[in-house]
Amino acid sequence: MSAQPPSPVPPIERFAAIVGARHAITDAQEIAPHLIEPRGLYHDASPLLLRPGSREEVAEILKLASATGTIIVPQGGNTGLTGAQVPQQGRSEVILSLSRLNRIRDIDAIGGTLTSEAGVVLASVQEAAETAGMMFPLSLASEGSCQVGGILSTNAGGTAVLAHGSMRHLCLGLEVVLPSGDIWNGLRQLKKDNTGYDLRDLFIGAEGTLGVITAAVLKLAPRPRGRQTVLIGVDDPAAALALFRIAADICGSSLTGFELMPRIALDFVIRHTEGGRDPLSAAHPWYALVEISSGQSEEAARGLLETLFIDADDKGLVRDAVAAESEAQRGELWQLREAISDAQKPEGGSIKHDVSVPVARVPAFLAAADKAVLAAIPAARIVAFGHMGDGNIHYNISQPVGADKQAFLARWREVNAIVHAIVIDMNGSISAEHGIGQLKRDELASIRQPIEIDLMARIKAAFDPAGILNPGKVLAPRRP
Amino acid sequence: MSAQPPSPVPPIERFAAIVGARHAITDAQEIAPHLIEPRGLYHDASPLLLRPGSREEVAEILKLASATGTIIVPQGGNTGLTGAQVPQQGRSEVILSLSRLNRIRDIDAIGGTLTSEAGVVLASVQEAAETAGMMFPLSLASEGSCQVGGILSTNAGGTAVLAHGSMRHLCLGLEVVLPSGDIWNGLRQLKKDNTGYDLRDLFIGAEGTLGVITAAVLKLAPRPRGRQTVLIGVDDPAAALALFRIAADICGSSLTGFELMPRIALDFVIRHTEGGRDPLSAAHPWYALVEISSGQSEEAARGLLETLFIDADDKGLVRDAVAAESEAQRGELWQLREAISDAQKPEGGSIKHDVSVPVARVPAFLAAADKAVLAAIPAARIVAFGHMGDGNIHYNISQPVGADKQAFLARWREVNAIVHAIVIDMNGSISAEHGIGQLKRDELASIRQPIEIDLMARIKAAFDPAGILNPGKVLAPRRP
Repeated sequence: MSAQPPSPVPPIERFAAIVGARHAITDAQEIAPHLIEPRGLYHDASPLLLRPGSREEVAEILKLASATGTIIVPQGGNTGLTGAQVPQQGRSEVILSLSRLNRIRDIDAIGGTLTSEAGVVLASVQEAAETAGMMFPLSLASEGSCQVGGILSTNAGGTAVLAHGSMRHLCLGLEVVLPSGDIWNGLRQLKKDNTGYDLRDLFIGAEGTLGVITAAVLKLAPRPRGRQTVLIGVDDPAAALALFRIAADICGSSLTGFELMPRIALDFVIRHTEGGRDPLSAAHPWYALVEISSGQSEEAARGLLETLFIDADDKGLVRDAVAAESEAQRGELWQLREAISDAQKPEGGSIKHDVSVPVARVPAFLAAADKAVLAAIPAARIVAFGHMGDGNIHYNISQPVGADKQAFLARWREVNAIVHAIVIDMNGSISAEHGIGQLKRDELASIRQPIEIDLMARIKAAFDPAGILNPGKVLAPRRP
Repeated sequence: MSAQPPSPVPPIERFAAIVGARHAITDAQEIAPHLIEPRGLYHDASPLLLRPGSREEVAEILKLASATGTIIVPQGGNTGLTGAQVPQQGRSEVILSLSRLNRIRDIDAIGGTLTSEAGVVLASVQEAAETAGMMFPLSLASEGSCQVGGILSTNAGGTAVLAHGSMRHLCLGLEVVLPSGDIWNGLRQLKKDNTGYDLRDLFIGAEGTLGVITAAVLKLAPRPRGRQTVLIGVDDPAAALALFRIAADICGSSLTGFELMPRIALDFVIRHTEGGRDPLSAAHPWYALVEISSGQSEEAARGLLETLFIDADDKGLVRDAVAAESEAQRGELWQLREAISDAQKPEGGSIKHDVSVPVARVPAFLAAADKAVLAAIPAARIVAFGHMGDGNIHYNISQPVGADKQAFLARWREVNAIVHAIVIDMNGSISAEHGIGQLKRDELASIRQPIEIDLMARIKAAFDPAGILNPGKVLAPRRP
């Protein structure tokens, strides 16, 4: 993919002198797990894995890299889905693991903030917040291994974005090492601060191409005192959208989940998940999984849910519904949503998309995409589900029953082009939560105005004049 | 202040050819109101005021300005408090008024978005949202004249930030004209979009130094179905903070107001406002003005308030309280807060600050600042009030009774230095909502790490290589 000339062989000894021999890994077997990303789309090599133990060591590494033209690829928990965190240039790129920066520096329960280093695993942040009587709301499938630096660099999302926002909205301040080796201390805990350009939001979502995030101030949320989780059968996405509008108006930030699922997703989960069963007595074409959380009480959460049902029934939106009566039942309902991706696997190959459109256009998007995809592959089984309230649909397509898996998967880019054309026509995003990395870099350049790509390239050149920090991710590498 | 060499005399005829003679104003009297900002701190001159009628005309203007080295100062409603929107270089800077771009292009009530041009007045946005059955929550003293482009460029705040965020959080997409004349169409309506660097948040708060915002997609909020407004007397800022923590935990985004006021502020308002009266039977040292909004019902809002009082009484936080029983009473309670600045005027000169600290440190900040200010000016009357829930205090100081007003105001910078030193020591902000402009530019450079100022300067140079867009605001102008 890259037209970049190979960079020079890294001065391994000099890097090892910074972190100590023990943390300068050259053993191919030890490096191997850091080379493959979860989907196995990219698999390259690297001569060196560095594991610095402090921001100062990160600074020394980047300074040396800038001076010697060594390419540095920052890596957190290596859970990203677009190849941003793995090398792509044969044996010349050095992997910079942040995993030893794994200290939670501070928790302020009154102010509701937690200061974490980049290598802390998301689940550890959640636990630390819990111990302090608060909650860190961001929740992802990979929360047991993804790290704070990585999820900030990709502006990660998940199921809690609806009420709490993505990582961007959960971060008040950053500490970042620049390619020059300068350390920017932007670890502010302020809710309001209008003092110059918004550097913080520039580093968030930059996929490690502008600087290396070494620590962050994260926002905590209060733990709810009451929660209601309900699975609602509806006729179609338009009914789900109408239901969402009512729920959002009534509940505000107490609406903490609103996921959309088609019947086929439930069929797959029931078929392929142990103990999987339909919690409703009849089948419905579509489902909304709705969660309401109250900071006041269980009764208040129930009250919100009742108001929602009264308003929704007035409009004939609800075909049937079941509310969780216990934590176990709550887990079962969420399992129906969370098991979808895994349940697709026994059904054969699947072609995936992570797209968003304006919330009001979700039904129109689904109708148009279904029509276009079925025109191309008449027996394709469309499993479109996701974060309705964010307009973010994981538009997955399982192969036709009995079709050849490889032949189906060979049409990945063709199908992407069909779906993304509709997304772009609706002023949507071809990457709602996963980012660009290597996977969507060239496609991004092809769909955006040249001025937008040019502004990004100017920022990249201004921050990383030597071009050593994760080049070829997000943006094409600069011509030499 | 500026070490910048004067820029060349603008080619008035060529600019007039772009917008038409009627909208290329050279008459000094017509230009005059555009030269003075609300506090009267700056008063310069300008040979030309341009009033383009389209983004294309804005683009032509900036292209010509880049080619001829003409300095352009973008201006909205001219309500900014730091001199960002007025010229500062004698007769060489051209004012670019966005006021003719005053169309609301689109309202999407289901998706909850409104697309507005830069010159639309905030009050008109609020009205249009209201007409569509929604609400645009941002609310400011200057809402009758400030414009969308200006409040985005300064990332304006106000009393609704607590639940809804500042302009940054209420904006989904932008249309921006670059100094080159390129038009960036970033008018997205997406809640989730991880496709490259966050250009939107870079233009927001940049005070018109990186590009000229010509339109924006704004987020609307549902209108509440129930609202409770209550004035609570408390012992001290620590009690107010404890009350805030409880209210935030119980109410989440239903806590739509939490303002802190000292007794002296109420005394001033009661003394100098027509019909001013104390709604409580006895005086209290401090007050919290709390507002709770419910999307569910009036009963639900009352329920939240009752839960708040039960929890707060347990901790002995409430000395006395009064809730508004009608819209008129609600207006009276808010008037106690909103009239403070005006009520300070008859009391003589006042030295002002717009600072923020981490919310948990507000009581410590007030104690430290009071001590330091009273050590310098023993009889100073400190009127520190503001957005407690955002950690944002308008730390105003009225002159001692009977003191000489001019002698007191002559100590403005000395007192600023005292207060800001404490703010900086607490990792706070010297400009929570008003921005930097000319007023705090040199102070910002002196308190921030050189790398931070340097990164901002690199962005400025990358976006505006000719240095024609509002130079000398936020950052010192580049040396030639």
